[in-house]
Amino acid sequence: MTDEEFMRRAIEITRAGIAAGQSPFGSVIAKDGKVVAATHNTVWLTTDPTAHAEVNCIRAAATALKSIALSGCTLYTTTEPCPMCLSAIHWAKIEKVIYGATIADAADAGFKELFIDAKEMVRMGRSPLVVESGLLQSECAHLFAEWKAAGKGRAY
Amino acid sequence: MTDEEFMRRAIEITRAGIAAGQSPFGSVIAKDGKVVAATHNTVWLTTDPTAHAEVNCIRAAATALKSIALSGCTLYTTTEPCPMCLSAIHWAKIEKVIYGATIADAADAGFKELFIDAKEMVRMGRSPLVVESGLLQSECAHLFAEWKAAGKGRAY
Repeated sequence: MTDEEFMRRAIEITRAGIAAGQSPFGSVIAKDGKVVAATHNTVWLTTDPTAHAEVNCIRAAATALKSIALSGCTLYTTTEPCPMCLSAIHWAKIEKVIYGATIADAADAGFKELFIDAKEMVRMGRSPLVVESGLLQSECAHLFAEWKAAGKGRAY
Repeated sequence: MTDEEFMRRAIEITRAGIAAGQSPFGSVIAKDGKVVAATHNTVWLTTDPTAHAEVNCIRAAATALKSIALSGCTLYTTTEPCPMCLSAIHWAKIEKVIYGATIADAADAGFKELFIDAKEMVRMGRSPLVVESGLLQSECAHLFAEWKAAGKGRAY
């Protein structure tokens, strides 16, 4: 599978989350060309403010791989990770994160973001994590409109 | 209970974690003068790189209070929160975090920290979270020596 195909899988799982009344964020962790885990945000569903798509994905991948070190993995995520998720990705020793929409796109949709740029944060924290942006950005950003149109969720 | 008593409870739960081979970090969430949740790091125990003491505490408190918004709560934690935990505290709408030892203390003990100062990060992220430092710092920092002496855990 290609980077674009992995991101399309993240978009797909986000849509499943939107249908279930969850916030419009989805992630995929891949290793050796295969999906290890695909998850959406479940903050409302699980009454857990830490249950962002990326945190859920890391927890699922660590369970699947039976390891706290997800070395050799790439995480695809529909929106630029917040500092919680970016740090979680660092702790999990994931090599690369690729995102689509930006924190600004999420803020435009009503999400009260922590305004810390992912690339800047990785630099400040002296993390070896590689951060790539802009993959399918417009399709990822469109998920916010789909979420609003569905009318099932509140921004959190 | 006073701030100092809540921090002593966090130190106590950290020692339980050390005895169980976990990393030497513990947290307490309090509301209206009472403990809502007290947890230690369980990264090794649960094979979950996101299971820092603070994240565990937020998840436990959200379950206990049946709410993703922990308004009116204070989080006490033995060491300055990493950016993952600090952001999780922000998302949980906790009002104040009070820590003992610093990121530098943890780094001295062999933990590969993300070197982002908690107070600076809250400022950068435009978060309303109040951050206080230095409560029982020497006792909290001593937990690293206790953890090393126990010889049961690896830094992660």
